Amino acid sequence: MATPETEQKVEGEQVINPWEVSAKDGGKIDYDKLIEKFGCQRIDQTLVNRIEHLTSRPAHIFLRRGVFFAHRDFKEILDLYEKGEKFYLYTGRGPSSEALHLGHLVPFMFTKYLQDAFKVPLVIQLTDDEKCMWKNLSVEECKRLARENAKDIIACGFDISRTFIFSDFNFIGGAFYENMVRVSKCVTFNKVVGIFGFTNEDHIGKISFPPIQAVPSFPSSFPHLFSDSKDLRCLIPCAIDQDPYFRMTRDVAPRLGYHKPSLIESSFFPALQGETGKMSASDPNSAIYVTDSAKAIKNKINKYAFSGGQDSIENHRKFGANLDVDIPFKYLGFFLDDDAELEHIKTEYGAGRMLTGEVKKRLIDVLSELVERHQRARAAVTEEMVDAFMAVRPLPNMFS
Amino acid sequence: MATPETEQKVEGEQVINPWEVSAKDGGKIDYDKLIEKFGCQRIDQTLVNRIEHLTSRPAHIFLRRGVFFAHRDFKEILDLYEKGEKFYLYTGRGPSSEALHLGHLVPFMFTKYLQDAFKVPLVIQLTDDEKCMWKNLSVEECKRLARENAKDIIACGFDISRTFIFSDFNFIGGAFYENMVRVSKCVTFNKVVGIFGFTNEDHIGKISFPPIQAVPSFPSSFPHLFSDSKDLRCLIPCAIDQDPYFRMTRDVAPRLGYHKPSLIESSFFPALQGETGKMSASDPNSAIYVTDSAKAIKNKINKYAFSGGQDSIENHRKFGANLDVDIPFKYLGFFLDDDAELEHIKTEYGAGRMLTGEVKKRLIDVLSELVERHQRARAAVTEEMVDAFMAVRPLPNMFS
Repeated sequence: MATPETEQKVEGEQVINPWEVSAKDGGKIDYDKLIEKFGCQRIDQTLVNRIEHLTSRPAHIFLRRGVFFAHRDFKEILDLYEKGEKFYLYTGRGPSSEALHLGHLVPFMFTKYLQDAFKVPLVIQLTDDEKCMWKNLSVEECKRLARENAKDIIACGFDISRTFIFSDFNFIGGAFYENMVRVSKCVTFNKVVGIFGFTNEDHIGKISFPPIQAVPSFPSSFPHLFSDSKDLRCLIPCAIDQDPYFRMTRDVAPRLGYHKPSLIESSFFPALQGETGKMSASDPNSAIYVTDSAKAIKNKINKYAFSGGQDSIENHRKFGANLDVDIPFKYLGFFLDDDAELEHIKTEYGAGRMLTGEVKKRLIDVLSELVERHQRARAAVTEEMVDAFMAVRPLPNMFS
Repeated sequence: MATPETEQKVEGEQVINPWEVSAKDGGKIDYDKLIEKFGCQRIDQTLVNRIEHLTSRPAHIFLRRGVFFAHRDFKEILDLYEKGEKFYLYTGRGPSSEALHLGHLVPFMFTKYLQDAFKVPLVIQLTDDEKCMWKNLSVEECKRLARENAKDIIACGFDISRTFIFSDFNFIGGAFYENMVRVSKCVTFNKVVGIFGFTNEDHIGKISFPPIQAVPSFPSSFPHLFSDSKDLRCLIPCAIDQDPYFRMTRDVAPRLGYHKPSLIESSFFPALQGETGKMSASDPNSAIYVTDSAKAIKNKINKYAFSGGQDSIENHRKFGANLDVDIPFKYLGFFLDDDAELEHIKTEYGAGRMLTGEVKKRLIDVLSELVERHQRARAAVTEEMVDAFMAVRPLPNMFS
């Protein structure tokens, strides 16, 4: 693996870490450069084909469209899977806000697909302690947000028999804490400064956090879930801004006699205003939330979604839309599952025969349906279901 | 309280922190200077008299002889006690070695006296995680040592109905972890560098540890023990090298809406070779261990205990012993409970009428009896008793 590189800000350079995503000079994120800098591998068509073959189902839209575009040692997971060896999935969320936006759903929608396709157990970490340490929020408020966010996650349709959701405040202790100590012993202050850009003025809560996100990568952190599987491999689906945590984890793992976790990493879901970073929680008009009404979705897309269309109908018919910057087209790339229809829009809109209004209308339909479906599913999530997903219990990890 | 001052080493200066105790230029620890530097208060005769009055029993030998010589806000605890308000005791141990030496027993013997005299609950923290992070020891070995050390602690005679012993690896989680996060948020890296002298090359396990020793000072860390007493005050008996942890704790407490813990602090039990620091675990001949045989005790004292006697009998009769440096006399000061007899030895030995051999013989008798009594008590500690002391359960905290 690549040596973790310093993420400290260089004027004008792109910065990608768990707390900041900003492109070079305010432009677009350069994902090729990111792959090179982080030292991960690109997901190519051969790999997508192999996944389809192994799972006997079409690749998920996020794989076909290159949303999940990079990986670390995913091939190793597939080699073992082919030989009959299972793995487990680990993903997570920092529960900082009540309502999730579409970008937050991306890793969970993809993780659900992976769970269904590979029939594997899954642990979902809610880092309520992280949010408490980074934001001016009380322990109690962060625990409440974790539970609210769990309902949205459950609404994504995870298989309760194979899924364990936990919040750090509720779960840390025992074997999990022992692994936190083991990891902490292997990482110097200088090292976390290099990986995460901490400073001497940061509080020690921040400095002590990275091992907490690292240890769910090791099955021995969950003895009650994976009692007979200490060699079980771990695959982490996540957005690529989380990569620093797992570079650190992969660096430490062999020293503890543990397997390195594998990763499958996504690009960022762009803001309505344009593709220069992630959506901002502080600007509600930069994102579609899973709590938005159909009317709000229609209004946000019509009013704020950055268009690549030309400034007049005449010019648009003449030059066509600039699809590289067009947000409605990009959003359809994430959520319009029909490849033929997307290709049709690409051709017609790009040639100027289709207008921005028509593309936005199609997007409004697609997102309204998605959000409405999510809202229905979330309304059906009971407190008892949350308790059941969060109950510590053995998860099946053999083929069933 | 005093602003925590940097404990970083200045050439030739005395250094007192949890990991290093060394006097200026290899001389004796200057406790007056320490009180001034740390900003704590001296325990004077008026305070000792008040304790005797409040507890209706003679002051403990360690109070009468000035072993516990400094405090922070102990008077506040006594004021409240006088008005009928109870408190709880908190002490601890880093379980780094199998056998305890006499210096290790000092805080526990004194804590037992406080528990008996004030009839208060007690929590004892075994920082097995700390030892794992500071020493080249596995998690499993540290957990084993914690349990072995718990047996020696129990052998000191604590009241099981009022005493909860816990190891960090077994106990950390829940409300205790929540307080760890609350404390961590209030302490920057620069701050722990200033208090503990950490460097950028230290691993983040060390940097994240101080809050773990801080939070047993807050009753809300133990909701199952002190369910109805969130305002219960805390008194910490400890050696003064632990003061940096509690300076930090007292600094943070008001910001969390918690009471500052009070402290009662001891000087160091000197090594057999002389009073220039604490005893060294790496040199078995520098200390009397609770596992030593009567024969070993006799041999160590006769062979290694630094004598203040003169080099010839003639000179000794003429000049008398130098009691300021005489280890047998100092050890008797810790453990010979008979004030009149100690005074007699002081006069006779100091005047040269008593010889080193006679003083050593008296010390051998006193320590052999003490160690033998401890060994009998420890042999009677069963695994079931350890489990009972370590069981999470309500502790009575009202007058009984």
